[in-house]
Amino acid sequence: MKRIFTTIVLLTAVTSGLSAQQALGWGESIVSPEINPDRTVTFRLRAPKAVTVAVVGDFQDGPGIMKEEAGVWSYTTEKLEPELYLYSFIVNGSRQLDPANVYMSRDVATWTNYFIVSGEEGDRGSLYLDNKVPHGDVARVWYDSPTLGLSRKMTIYTPAGYSAVSNKARYPVLYLLHGAGGDEEAWVTLGRAAEILDNLIAAGKAEPMIVVMPNGNTNTSAAPGAWSAGMYQPSFGRDPRFPEAKATMDESFPDIVRYVESRYRVRKGAESRAICGLSMGGGHTFMTSKRYPGMFGYIGLFSAAITVGNWQDRSKSTLEKMNEDTEFQQQMAAMFAAGPRLYWIGIGETDFLKPQNDDLRSWLDSKGFPYEYLESSGGHVWRNWRIYLTVFSRKLFK
Amino acid sequence: MKRIFTTIVLLTAVTSGLSAQQALGWGESIVSPEINPDRTVTFRLRAPKAVTVAVVGDFQDGPGIMKEEAGVWSYTTEKLEPELYLYSFIVNGSRQLDPANVYMSRDVATWTNYFIVSGEEGDRGSLYLDNKVPHGDVARVWYDSPTLGLSRKMTIYTPAGYSAVSNKARYPVLYLLHGAGGDEEAWVTLGRAAEILDNLIAAGKAEPMIVVMPNGNTNTSAAPGAWSAGMYQPSFGRDPRFPEAKATMDESFPDIVRYVESRYRVRKGAESRAICGLSMGGGHTFMTSKRYPGMFGYIGLFSAAITVGNWQDRSKSTLEKMNEDTEFQQQMAAMFAAGPRLYWIGIGETDFLKPQNDDLRSWLDSKGFPYEYLESSGGHVWRNWRIYLTVFSRKLFK
Repeated sequence: MKRIFTTIVLLTAVTSGLSAQQALGWGESIVSPEINPDRTVTFRLRAPKAVTVAVVGDFQDGPGIMKEEAGVWSYTTEKLEPELYLYSFIVNGSRQLDPANVYMSRDVATWTNYFIVSGEEGDRGSLYLDNKVPHGDVARVWYDSPTLGLSRKMTIYTPAGYSAVSNKARYPVLYLLHGAGGDEEAWVTLGRAAEILDNLIAAGKAEPMIVVMPNGNTNTSAAPGAWSAGMYQPSFGRDPRFPEAKATMDESFPDIVRYVESRYRVRKGAESRAICGLSMGGGHTFMTSKRYPGMFGYIGLFSAAITVGNWQDRSKSTLEKMNEDTEFQQQMAAMFAAGPRLYWIGIGETDFLKPQNDDLRSWLDSKGFPYEYLESSGGHVWRNWRIYLTVFSRKLFK
Repeated sequence: MKRIFTTIVLLTAVTSGLSAQQALGWGESIVSPEINPDRTVTFRLRAPKAVTVAVVGDFQDGPGIMKEEAGVWSYTTEKLEPELYLYSFIVNGSRQLDPANVYMSRDVATWTNYFIVSGEEGDRGSLYLDNKVPHGDVARVWYDSPTLGLSRKMTIYTPAGYSAVSNKARYPVLYLLHGAGGDEEAWVTLGRAAEILDNLIAAGKAEPMIVVMPNGNTNTSAAPGAWSAGMYQPSFGRDPRFPEAKATMDESFPDIVRYVESRYRVRKGAESRAICGLSMGGGHTFMTSKRYPGMFGYIGLFSAAITVGNWQDRSKSTLEKMNEDTEFQQQMAAMFAAGPRLYWIGIGETDFLKPQNDDLRSWLDSKGFPYEYLESSGGHVWRNWRIYLTVFSRKLFK
């Protein structure tokens, strides 16, 4: 039946000018990007009238200058490591998406094409793909935050089998937080959180867990276009049309936990609760975990934006502030006294937030508070945060 | 806290070249599209080296030729009716997306920018916006289809309040099917189904209902990128890498109903089940409803691809085939004998599938089977399908 209708619609549409009417899009006849068997990647763009075309992306440092033949520009990379890569074209100096590649992710207000290189099963690229494994469900739900005075959206991953009729099991929960400019979509799009968890759980490398991805910007309710503030253009700065937040993310965090623990079959208690986040979300993790000692048994700071005391005071280092701030010291002491199973810090060697993270480690060392540390190559980029999730999530709830 | 981190990250990122590293995207400094107070719309594109720039979209018939000033091209439309509109730019003859507009929808393999014009509360454009009303949840779930031998994905909308802890109510279910080339994402993106239901339910114009949006292509499991076939480019034709489907959509439909009725708090029985779909999904609705008389109390054909007998035989009209095909006649008679509350047909006056729908109406008239009919302006386009959903969903479960 399906094939019959497909054929009818296809034939009729081609001859009736339907595509023009409907912007249906028949796709481009050229293939781009093409991931070659040797793991080089070829980009192609049809642009007969262009003067200069280049491809820019996180697979190499400089632009790839594309060469034209019969109106089609192309460029082939060096051999690439298994990974998810982002790229765009620069046509006559203006940034443009690849019309032949349907795969795109949004970061703040910008869409960027992506592709995934994977050499073999179990390599890093393959963790970001939808493989032949049981899949979890991903829901966008709304919860009330009385602390913020808002109804807010979040994304919740439940692992494969959670919804099976006969399943009465309770699951541990990972709270997974995005960075500034992101929203409740970031970890399931750029972060590949559902694919990573599906694949690690199927391989027996991570425990089945629920993953809760709230919106960390406390003066908004949801991602752009998904709430009543209208179809605003998201940005890093605070949109003056939005209300001033009534509270901070860490203050409001119990609203999220209360929602999750009342509606899902979860195991309660610190040994079944983990929290981690990237950049601003790493800051939220840092603040929330010390504000509520004993709430989380596993705490992960991914390239975390760590602030102590007055962030505007640049006359002192973060370490100096830590050594002076008795409230900070008391909160951290109470948190470690509650005995978290893991305090984990990951950061890239060129990350601009590394100094604060170095200071935190120095302070923890000086107090003898235990933590694990991973220093990766690179900077403040999604590649690192995906890697940190694959490392951190394996350590949870064992 | 949020503002503090935002400011830190913003300042540090701007001065550290982070955006180049991360393709974060700071957005364009120009506004496009701008919806003016008089409901005209202005498009703008920065393209200093371009020779010709036009905007094409479903808001007018021909291209809007853009004029350049200081490297920025612009065009302003006539006054537009409240509606969701799709558009792209044509730069030097090549199609390009609007880099200043974060709002895009995918149709098959093509992304297109969109915007929504809304004049006042309750107009058609406003039904497609996220307004200050309670919102339902939207989940992507996986179900087993033994009939197809596949684990498959679908999208499920549960209305506001469904998940409240104290709520024990059971809800009716609308099964909402996409067209050829679409997938389980189509109705919540281009179709604005969640916004339409949120707004109609909040206004008391539609009953609270669960909406189930399965994938209608029986040889695939899920939307592109969401299943293990890899990152293929979707198309209207059958991808030779996919397995031949083991059964048709209508044959496999009970697998979907079984999943939904076992996992959600639903009211069972025909008076609490509705089915509708567009184009191929209208064909699936037509086939499924007559294959299972008494399963659905409400049946809606939206620009339906109706086939009876051998679709390749063009020597006879659909009406002639209906008058000859005793299996079709028996199925339809059994379905109407079961007393559906509504058999609804909607189609555009210029739709290429109108002849088959005219024939179906003639046949129904000849037998005295009751139905409701809506003929709208325009053709085989999403605008009509959104309109049909707003009309049809109001008639359900009263």
